[in-house]
Amino acid sequence: MNEQNFTMLCDFYQLTMGNGYFKTKHADRIAYFDLFFRRVPDNGGYAICAGLEQVIDYIEKLCFDEKDIEYLRSKKIFSEEFLEYLRGFKFEGDIYAVPEGTPVFPYEPLITVRAPAIQAQLIETMLLLLVNHQSLIATKASRIVRASKGRAVSEFGSRRAQGSAGAVLGARAAYIGGCSGTACVMSDELYGVPATGTMAHSWVQMFDSEIEAFEEYCRVYPNSAVLLVDTYNVLKSGVPNAIKAFDNILKPQNARPVGIRLDSGDIAYLSIEARRMLDEAGYPDCKIIASNSLDEYIISDLINQGARIDSFGVGERLITAASEPVFGGVYKLCATEENGVITPKIKISENVVKITNPHYKKVYRIFDNKTGKAQADLICLHDESIDETEPLELFDPDFTWKRKTVRDFTAKPLQVPVFLNGKRVYQPPTIEEIKSFCAEQLGTLWDSVLRFENPHKYHVDLSQKLWDIKHKLLSDKGD
Amino acid sequence: MNEQNFTMLCDFYQLTMGNGYFKTKHADRIAYFDLFFRRVPDNGGYAICAGLEQVIDYIEKLCFDEKDIEYLRSKKIFSEEFLEYLRGFKFEGDIYAVPEGTPVFPYEPLITVRAPAIQAQLIETMLLLLVNHQSLIATKASRIVRASKGRAVSEFGSRRAQGSAGAVLGARAAYIGGCSGTACVMSDELYGVPATGTMAHSWVQMFDSEIEAFEEYCRVYPNSAVLLVDTYNVLKSGVPNAIKAFDNILKPQNARPVGIRLDSGDIAYLSIEARRMLDEAGYPDCKIIASNSLDEYIISDLINQGARIDSFGVGERLITAASEPVFGGVYKLCATEENGVITPKIKISENVVKITNPHYKKVYRIFDNKTGKAQADLICLHDESIDETEPLELFDPDFTWKRKTVRDFTAKPLQVPVFLNGKRVYQPPTIEEIKSFCAEQLGTLWDSVLRFENPHKYHVDLSQKLWDIKHKLLSDKGD
Repeated sequence: MNEQNFTMLCDFYQLTMGNGYFKTKHADRIAYFDLFFRRVPDNGGYAICAGLEQVIDYIEKLCFDEKDIEYLRSKKIFSEEFLEYLRGFKFEGDIYAVPEGTPVFPYEPLITVRAPAIQAQLIETMLLLLVNHQSLIATKASRIVRASKGRAVSEFGSRRAQGSAGAVLGARAAYIGGCSGTACVMSDELYGVPATGTMAHSWVQMFDSEIEAFEEYCRVYPNSAVLLVDTYNVLKSGVPNAIKAFDNILKPQNARPVGIRLDSGDIAYLSIEARRMLDEAGYPDCKIIASNSLDEYIISDLINQGARIDSFGVGERLITAASEPVFGGVYKLCATEENGVITPKIKISENVVKITNPHYKKVYRIFDNKTGKAQADLICLHDESIDETEPLELFDPDFTWKRKTVRDFTAKPLQVPVFLNGKRVYQPPTIEEIKSFCAEQLGTLWDSVLRFENPHKYHVDLSQKLWDIKHKLLSDKGD
Repeated sequence: MNEQNFTMLCDFYQLTMGNGYFKTKHADRIAYFDLFFRRVPDNGGYAICAGLEQVIDYIEKLCFDEKDIEYLRSKKIFSEEFLEYLRGFKFEGDIYAVPEGTPVFPYEPLITVRAPAIQAQLIETMLLLLVNHQSLIATKASRIVRASKGRAVSEFGSRRAQGSAGAVLGARAAYIGGCSGTACVMSDELYGVPATGTMAHSWVQMFDSEIEAFEEYCRVYPNSAVLLVDTYNVLKSGVPNAIKAFDNILKPQNARPVGIRLDSGDIAYLSIEARRMLDEAGYPDCKIIASNSLDEYIISDLINQGARIDSFGVGERLITAASEPVFGGVYKLCATEENGVITPKIKISENVVKITNPHYKKVYRIFDNKTGKAQADLICLHDESIDETEPLELFDPDFTWKRKTVRDFTAKPLQVPVFLNGKRVYQPPTIEEIKSFCAEQLGTLWDSVLRFENPHKYHVDLSQKLWDIKHKLLSDKGD
């Protein structure tokens, strides 16, 4: 996964347009693109940005090999000059990006690309694919982890993931979003996401009886036994046999059981009964782990019903973000540049939410100095700076009479430079650093933004200069 | 994608169980596993099986390299003997599978694995991941293509796919399910799925005016121009400028335009108006292509409203199967074997749909000789054969009084041998062959099974012998 070159994972039109730019002498025209999204999945109040490490890896490996050139030639629509250009292709532009783990909001540029048009265009699909996928899963994981109220959540979904990268990088994103680990071994080996696991029903079935299966497992793993108790009947055989195995095998060695796992049935009721049985048998420290088509809604309900669950294994509904499996990031041209002059560009639409913010921009997050809380994000022109010593007036870009003045604040740029002139200038943090950063940054959001149902809409405003340019373009072209 | 070794894409418990089987001397016990699913996504009447080619590739590449062994050793729970065993690991068992493109139904084994327990267990996650993912997308594509009633459907969703394999193999599965092509270049290069593409909004924005952008594109691609007409205003500027560009650039060369594309707004209304304008301008042969968050439901509605659309580009809702993004295949132990004696195994559950069909089995599809239509599938013991010269009585495995006798039929085994003793004995068909086979096999299903809403439930029955064994195990263990 981290060895592969994904240059050819592009949309065919990026190549036909590239060939077109080449022929029309637009190849070297500088283009600015923003990658942003328009709404948070599941009607949430925030998203978690992820995927940048893979974007960096992709950009650094960009190149067309001879097999690729041959394939393209066989399509009989690309000029030989263009194929020759592709043979020497590499990325020579600038990329600015929001670090992974940052809570982000609709319409702000997560990534800004400045590069010759062909280059900026070619990377569209992979940038979107990588950021959309991992942001989707990190955001979903963050919801599920918050619903679990401090209980550990493990990602278990590889078998239902949409492809191998869906599993492996999905587990990475889930860890960034707050999961405690994964079942996916490859995600541990490649990305350092801690992998753990216990037993499947097949282990129990493989032996002549459930008690034999449990005792054998305790013998092999006296210090890490988690027994799956629902192969036949949880309360009549599973839990009693687990207790017997703990008594017979672990107790004589002074070992303590780690847990039991429930994977079917009425988890709330079964967990309460199993807890009672384990406590009475002298195993109050034996954890109860639950799995089986869980998500943030079911977990909230289970906790509300008093289920005695210590940790959750979450599979298909996390690894596919099943309740809303698409993170709708887009990649839009916002400016072109010739001879050092930047021309802002806008995409108009009858659907107003699809109108883009033009120009080469940057984003500040405004933190209140007293509370440390994030108050709003402000999208500005690339060369605007914010004077933190002066009161700052913010206004809603749609309902401009809604205004608010902030004082005693810190304005922190959200994006960092990642590539300049094609050279990487950013050292990606470790996955543990990203995960901690994510948790810490979530702590800067007000509870009202974090709320599951009907969260408060976090303000993403435009500077006056940017707003003026946008509205001038709208009135010029709107007719 | 087709070069990578996915041995480490397993669940951690497959390795802990493997180590356990090894220590408990169950390593060489033969296990039989069935891969099957329990319900068709979107309440459909059938699913399309896909992913076998990638399963074969995975099995043939299975091996642990030194880096993998080192990683596993660092976990400090695997014995050195087990690590040594993994160092020489390869698959030595048998695999029987339903060929790709076959319409399949709940509870029938799509893949049956017979192998030493550790081997059969280790491959669980990848077999499920590959078959679940591609069957999900092939099934969704089949629905969307049927809703389009003969109009071409292109897969456009790479940028919203859940990871790189989600995009590339998703496009492959969509093609098997009936799509005419993809936007994904890598899927064409690696798997022969025809890639096509036109232009993005950025092409139009890159030029000083829409008409300049269109004329330049027509100049570069006089024989394949499809112009995107919704960057500013479809009917006021997009379609008139497209017509102007056709007139100015194509007409003098005697070239004909290929099409225009609508990507926003009220597609039904806009397509009707655009059709009228194109016809009046002398371009009745110019196709109208529509995209923008389409799926089978919206396509049906557009067609019902009289939209004048010639082909559809379908993105996120196809590549993620957004309305139900999980294909719930499972992999369950159904028998063990020692000294040539096969012992059937069952997984019991309070949830009756989760009870498994025990034993080493095979599946026949019963075709009526007069109509050629598929009447039912019959799951039998592995050594049962069906006498086509005698009437065959089928019965519903849950409601056993529902019986039906078929006469003048052909019983065709659904699975083919793919690996025997670890050696591949199957030559996968080409993607074109799979696609044709899928279309042809769909033709053997009655319309009632193909229906979108409330389809007729296709019969998947058990032979009397299998039913007897299952019910004996249930009454033995049910208490």
